[in-house]
Amino acid sequence: MIKKEYLVAKENALKSLETACATKKVDEGILPILNLINAIDGFYTSSSCAGRIVLLEIPTIGDKRGARFLGIWHRTIEPEELEAASRNATKGLLWVLAQAPILHIGVQTTELADTMIKTAVSCGFKNSAMKSTGKKIVIEICSTERLDAPIGRDGCLFCEKEYLSLLIEIANEVIERSREKLERFEKKLKNSTIS
Amino acid sequence: MIKKEYLVAKENALKSLETACATKKVDEGILPILNLINAIDGFYTSSSCAGRIVLLEIPTIGDKRGARFLGIWHRTIEPEELEAASRNATKGLLWVLAQAPILHIGVQTTELADTMIKTAVSCGFKNSAMKSTGKKIVIEICSTERLDAPIGRDGCLFCEKEYLSLLIEIANEVIERSREKLERFEKKLKNSTIS
Repeated sequence: MIKKEYLVAKENALKSLETACATKKVDEGILPILNLINAIDGFYTSSSCAGRIVLLEIPTIGDKRGARFLGIWHRTIEPEELEAASRNATKGLLWVLAQAPILHIGVQTTELADTMIKTAVSCGFKNSAMKSTGKKIVIEICSTERLDAPIGRDGCLFCEKEYLSLLIEIANEVIERSREKLERFEKKLKNSTIS
Repeated sequence: MIKKEYLVAKENALKSLETACATKKVDEGILPILNLINAIDGFYTSSSCAGRIVLLEIPTIGDKRGARFLGIWHRTIEPEELEAASRNATKGLLWVLAQAPILHIGVQTTELADTMIKTAVSCGFKNSAMKSTGKKIVIEICSTERLDAPIGRDGCLFCEKEYLSLLIEIANEVIERSREKLERFEKKLKNSTIS
């Protein structure tokens, strides 16, 4: 990437992050890492998520555009919270998803991108990779834990209380592991010599 | 990547694929695409999967090493097949997974890698990315459809027949969409000018 273009992109990304922070649109759990990465020469962060549990309603299988979020939690939850959120369901399939953290990072060179990916993988983010290498180099930091389970259809839950509790237990485990990995990553970035 | 090293890697990969074909260790559904890719200068395929439905037993959450495959199907299945396979379950959590195709491709240059990723994304493999760019350039072609749902514990299914049928319906949908995407990709590779 040409240095000038990279610097303009980084400046814009930092402004966007500032605005997002001011309007509380950034997951607090991930902000320390974003700041650490942005402080390193050659890197800037774009869209990121600290990991979350989601209750999603999809009209027909695969129709992502018609998907409706009935609940988003960036923390561990209780089964009752999911049940309460599911009362707003109307039509289509209800899914509970647990998603690991995801960070997008703009990088100045492919060598720096490689180093950052290796650092992330060593902290447990095994699914990290370079998403584009053309005019803009972008890497994605991500791990593999997840849950994608349908739990109801057309407004009715079709799984029993015990099953729902197990799903939440697993979803919470994804969130807790995400936190541990983010902590490990934060620590490594603090002590790293990436630059 | 240095040309000589790339050529040696491609030669080895082609030999491995030949051996895998001879011992029927390659998913037949994916072989035409592997051959198409290997026929293009600058690319060679390594481990790949045409997409599959899996019944997996995991002793404790996250213990991937202790995971035991009770069933693997590279095709759509009937609920009865899953039920039959689940009778071999003993201890731990039982998961049913539906996984989209995954292809790993060694590439000679990052420019070629970018072109192949763009082609794959345009055919629906939205999760494609470069996995490494150092001495060896490797890209991963993958899409986003999936199912990761726990269905039982310690040898017992804890979901009802209707729920199991729905899970299989969704898993089969993942397999069917995978096939469509692979066909689209095959067609595009046949008409492409990547080289």
